[in-house]
Amino acid sequence: MSEVARTLKASQSSLRTINPIRKIVENIKNVNPNLKVLSLSIGDPAVYGMHPNSDILEAVQDETKSVAHHGYPPAVGYEFARKAVAEKYSQGEASYKSDDVVLTSGCSLALDLAIQTLADPGENILVPTPGFSIYVTSCAHHGIEPRCYKLLSEQGWEMDLAQCESLIDDKTRGILVNNPSNPCGSVWTEAHMRDILALAARHNLPIISDEVYADIVFPSTVAAGIRFISFASISTNVPILTTSSMSKQGLVPGWRLGWLLLHDPTHVMEQIRVGLVQIAQMIFGPNSMAQAALPRLMQLMTPEYMASLAGTLQRQADVLIHQLRTIPQLTFVEPQGAMYVMVGLKLAEFRDIESDIDFCQKLLAEQSVAALPGSCFRQPNFIRLVFCVAEDVLVEAGQRIAQFCADHSVQA
Amino acid sequence: MSEVARTLKASQSSLRTINPIRKIVENIKNVNPNLKVLSLSIGDPAVYGMHPNSDILEAVQDETKSVAHHGYPPAVGYEFARKAVAEKYSQGEASYKSDDVVLTSGCSLALDLAIQTLADPGENILVPTPGFSIYVTSCAHHGIEPRCYKLLSEQGWEMDLAQCESLIDDKTRGILVNNPSNPCGSVWTEAHMRDILALAARHNLPIISDEVYADIVFPSTVAAGIRFISFASISTNVPILTTSSMSKQGLVPGWRLGWLLLHDPTHVMEQIRVGLVQIAQMIFGPNSMAQAALPRLMQLMTPEYMASLAGTLQRQADVLIHQLRTIPQLTFVEPQGAMYVMVGLKLAEFRDIESDIDFCQKLLAEQSVAALPGSCFRQPNFIRLVFCVAEDVLVEAGQRIAQFCADHSVQA
Ligand SMILES: Cc1ncc(COP(=O)(O)O)c(C=O)c1O
Ligand SMILES: Cc1ncc(COP(=O)(O)O)c(C=O)c1O
Repeated sequence: MSEVARTLKASQSSLRTINPIRKIVENIKNVNPNLKVLSLSIGDPAVYGMHPNSDILEAVQDETKSVAHHGYPPAVGYEFARKAVAEKYSQGEASYKSDDVVLTSGCSLALDLAIQTLADPGENILVPTPGFSIYVTSCAHHGIEPRCYKLLSEQGWEMDLAQCESLIDDKTRGILVNNPSNPCGSVWTEAHMRDILALAARHNLPIISDEVYADIVFPSTVAAGIRFISFASISTNVPILTTSSMSKQGLVPGWRLGWLLLHDPTHVMEQIRVGLVQIAQMIFGPNSMAQAALPRLMQLMTPEYMASLAGTLQRQADVLIHQLRTIPQLTFVEPQGAMYVMVGLKLAEFRDIESDIDFCQKLLAEQSVAALPGSCFRQPNFIRLVFCVAEDVLVEAGQRIAQFCADHSVQA
Repeated sequence: MSEVARTLKASQSSLRTINPIRKIVENIKNVNPNLKVLSLSIGDPAVYGMHPNSDILEAVQDETKSVAHHGYPPAVGYEFARKAVAEKYSQGEASYKSDDVVLTSGCSLALDLAIQTLADPGENILVPTPGFSIYVTSCAHHGIEPRCYKLLSEQGWEMDLAQCESLIDDKTRGILVNNPSNPCGSVWTEAHMRDILALAARHNLPIISDEVYADIVFPSTVAAGIRFISFASISTNVPILTTSSMSKQGLVPGWRLGWLLLHDPTHVMEQIRVGLVQIAQMIFGPNSMAQAALPRLMQLMTPEYMASLAGTLQRQADVLIHQLRTIPQLTFVEPQGAMYVMVGLKLAEFRDIESDIDFCQKLLAEQSVAALPGSCFRQPNFIRLVFCVAEDVLVEAGQRIAQFCADHSVQA
């Protein structure tokens, strides 16, 4: 044995598995000790008391009381639970059977499963910018290249179709979309979705559709004629791998209860199914009690329940938006759903703010308000605010942001 | 768009993620329609009613009633839950802090996490033969070479130290051990464990210690002076990554509640910690309600509880062993713990049995008894039987196996 112990090196794949949020936020940690911290940085409804309702809790409580569901579920999930998901999400062109469903530990693992099954190291997947950080983390982990297509703030965060198409080459294995969007809070029109489907069809590419915010569309958005549409429900020729979970709809992100749905209208995903199931047999799916509650949970996600949740989120968004409107140095596209708004910084109108990261650092240090820099989503000069937060917190946070912007205005 | 839809190819990594159990068992499915199937093939105590006790269920029930733990836990798990695990497992040389613990979705994901953090594609990890199938599946998934060291049935399934050492080269990144063993039901002596530690120390290799059957050691084994010892508790110079879960100890494999413990006596795992945490931030840990119950669950796993569980398993093992002893064509090392026994087939004493796979196929087709061929564990000419099964089922299964062997005897 050598005298000096030899340091162990970690694998390349583990070291390149970097979540940009963690990397950037690591350096944003000084708060104003005289002010209570208000966190508008994490999409976790539980933080400020948006708790699951008692029906949802009872569905899983009953499973914890029974002795029926504590053994190993099948690797892809209980048949009856997958059937419940399949039935719930069948509509339009998408008619799912239980075998089209793989239960996963949250939407995160459904995404990771889809990404690593579609692409090999050195191949690429198109991902949105701004976009949820885990897409690039998962690609990096597997040695897959994430190619970033643009969402255009000036077009209500629609995809830049031409730029997206220009990224496609013979190593492209899929287009990942996220609607309603984190971090944009946008909801696409059916016309725009059909343009994206046509683009995918032209290049024989499948779509990974991250629909974790399905049906979280504001009442005012619905009134304006824009509702949630699942990509699969309108796809006649593009294979769609839809990912979602109970995390946001059920306000239970801790449960890690998600799924992957396969819509294969042209029967081109046989090998993909083999790959997905094989990986599922290695990692297994979600907690058995949560799985077993799925039939009841699916029934609880009624249109009325979803409309009420979306209504609450809209009211909260409105509180925040109301304040943001009064701040001359900020700009934003009104959110239409989900839990987020991307706020643009007019840097020229600030006296001493260099960047989105600088903004967030100083905002926390002076006003104890936590926000995420747009750089976390590959969109510098923006910040992302969340509104799955109690109204009184949003009022106070909005006031502090206004104060902060006034303090740092070129006119101050 | 092309007229004929193009078939999508799955990634190489997904296609090579093969669980040998599934592959082999796929072809073993014809049962005798006149006999009820008795399954001695899966290590799932729930199948024949070995259910968790009410204290265990209550611990998690209380978490499902409260609104406290439905949000996102930290990626590595709740601090208080990790602390409970750290305290429970600290002993001897191993003194864990909460930061030495990563909560994972079952022992399976703790193993996968350890394997993929220690080794890069093209490097190798030493794994036991016979050994649990997921070790090779996980290595294959990541492009890591699993190098198989032998366990010697003639030495009570101890490691063939010389053969193991001969496998080590400059690409070896760790030695994976599993004690008590699936599929052998063996429990190593402290002396043998110290030999393995010395081997690892000579080559500066960390040990991945799969201790999912920790403390499941038969009363008679303990009476004979062999008790469960955690590798970390006796390692002064070898870094140990211990994996375990509530699956077997708590009889709740469906919960997917596991952990990885880091014992780093010579401070060589700093980079490993970074890699582990980064991957954890991508995949997240177990269900929040199950995590939150961990402090209580750790308290319920008393020596008395474990001794009682091990006693039950020994009684069940005895029922099976009693029958196996009467069958001249079979041979076995008496199990000392866990839930399994490897039974050797004296093929020359059978009239028409070609292999372990042939044996299992015919046993199912004629007697409707399901067993796994040793080939699933890379050990042909053996079969693995499980005894986490009700006694009456074991009696009947034993009788049917005896009948089967008599029917196929060279003397028949
Ligand atoms: C767009 C998007 N996809 C996926 C996820 C992950 O969801 P889950 O908690 O179900 O893994 C999130 C979480 O914030 C998200 O915003
Ligand atoms: C040796 C061994 N390790 C790990 C596991 C997996 O445990 P878990 O269900 O906690 O993932 C098993 C399950 O049978 C096993 O036998």
